[in-house]
Amino acid sequence: MALSVVELDELHQQLDLWREQGLSIGFVPTMGGLHEGHCSLMRQAQSLCDRLVVSIFVNPTQFAPHEDLEDYPRDAQGDHNKSEAAGADLVWLAQHQDIYPPNWSTTIVPQGVGLGLETDHRPHFFTGVATVVARLLTLVRPDVAVFGEKDYQQLLVVRQLNDDLRLGAKIVGGRLIRDGDGLALSSRNVYLGPEAREQARTVPKALQLMCEAYASGERDPSTLNALGEVTLSDQGLSIDYCRIVSSTNLEAPMDLLDDSPQSWRALIAARCHGIRLLDNCALDDPPWR
Amino acid sequence: MALSVVELDELHQQLDLWREQGLSIGFVPTMGGLHEGHCSLMRQAQSLCDRLVVSIFVNPTQFAPHEDLEDYPRDAQGDHNKSEAAGADLVWLAQHQDIYPPNWSTTIVPQGVGLGLETDHRPHFFTGVATVVARLLTLVRPDVAVFGEKDYQQLLVVRQLNDDLRLGAKIVGGRLIRDGDGLALSSRNVYLGPEAREQARTVPKALQLMCEAYASGERDPSTLNALGEVTLSDQGLSIDYCRIVSSTNLEAPMDLLDDSPQSWRALIAARCHGIRLLDNCALDDPPWR
Repeated sequence: MALSVVELDELHQQLDLWREQGLSIGFVPTMGGLHEGHCSLMRQAQSLCDRLVVSIFVNPTQFAPHEDLEDYPRDAQGDHNKSEAAGADLVWLAQHQDIYPPNWSTTIVPQGVGLGLETDHRPHFFTGVATVVARLLTLVRPDVAVFGEKDYQQLLVVRQLNDDLRLGAKIVGGRLIRDGDGLALSSRNVYLGPEAREQARTVPKALQLMCEAYASGERDPSTLNALGEVTLSDQGLSIDYCRIVSSTNLEAPMDLLDDSPQSWRALIAARCHGIRLLDNCALDDPPWR
Repeated sequence: MALSVVELDELHQQLDLWREQGLSIGFVPTMGGLHEGHCSLMRQAQSLCDRLVVSIFVNPTQFAPHEDLEDYPRDAQGDHNKSEAAGADLVWLAQHQDIYPPNWSTTIVPQGVGLGLETDHRPHFFTGVATVVARLLTLVRPDVAVFGEKDYQQLLVVRQLNDDLRLGAKIVGGRLIRDGDGLALSSRNVYLGPEAREQARTVPKALQLMCEAYASGERDPSTLNALGEVTLSDQGLSIDYCRIVSSTNLEAPMDLLDDSPQSWRALIAARCHGIRLLDNCALDDPPWR
């Protein structure tokens, strides 16, 4: 049975108890709307620690005013059950006043890996993410925290933030999970009707074509990026970015790619029937084998 | 003898050793240029802990390009000796690459008490302060850290930051120290020639007049502010602000002042022969008795 916790005091009592017993704490922060992608992060975290905490908090500061904060999927009981089944020992339904107390005055602005890509389209996004993640990590103080590679840039932002502010967690990336049709799992996929869903599949297809071209010897990043872009735009998707970047620092290749496909990652953000889709893969890890 | 430490590893070895011995750690972060004001913070910190760490780091991010970063007073040996005499057990001469490592990507922007007053004149100042203080506190992890009331707004910003990011220190305010002529001690006072020094004394005089008027029954904050401003401008000082605000949140009084003089603080920032002077006092704690 996973504990269901709302109050911060109760969370801290339980964490203190586990720590006194010498148990290590794993943490998977979520915004709810849980799917198999989240559950796989939880199973991974659970395998790395003694006790697993899952938080559910829809963070308003990472939504822009025109974005879908109000409509973001919420199902507390369903989320609790899924977390429990995936190994959570405690599900923390965080309250707004505990994450942002009345005097809260601190905003964290990430530079470095937080600049460009997502930030070009959602300027305040990583500021919101960094601020809430810093708060969550300082409230939970986990030994290990797992963030999905689905939000690859976010994973690198969180890792850097954790280093810079010495938040003390080991930040682990969790593998992106795809549906049977290749589409990356996302809470927002529920908004895709059948036609939009078919169109959305173009995103993993574009990644697949980029990986296959690389595997066939193409080493020019511009050619590979263009291949992905044409694939997306031919199917009517609106492209925010489709780009091969360094896996470690997200910088664009200065030259032709080398022969280490894990060093490079293809990142796509595209909009399909009003839904923004994110997907990515290492060049040796295409959506389909 | 105070240890003189440059390397971060050495700092952490010593801190770990003290912690293993169950000793509490006090911390006074400085930018060097030490004077009796700093020394009094150190003595205060020393009385509150078992071991006292003083850091010396001239933080570039809290200076604007036109400000006096290059000219800021530096005297490592003198600062070490003064720290030792004031009770420091370890003086950490922090290196730039340890405070801001090459991948450093995090900027902390304080709102709340960090908005207005100083920020109206030095827009990036508290961003620089909050970022370096967060870094210093996470590197030292002191039990107690003492910050001077001379920089009163800064003290409140640091306290809020420490709460928000749960940095775990007790933040203590250290009393402002005045020279014999009433001028608040400041590293920058060395730049004042005899004529400028005489003019600079107008700052504590303005505070004195505001306190005396309050003590005589004046309760209108506008009248008290105007009294201070006229005093300063009559002597040719250029005023950034001269204002009575709440001691706890720096907000302007909404109405007439009440009869609790500790609840209100007069804050002055003024420029005198190109030197920016900061001073403040609670309304029952004037520069001269």
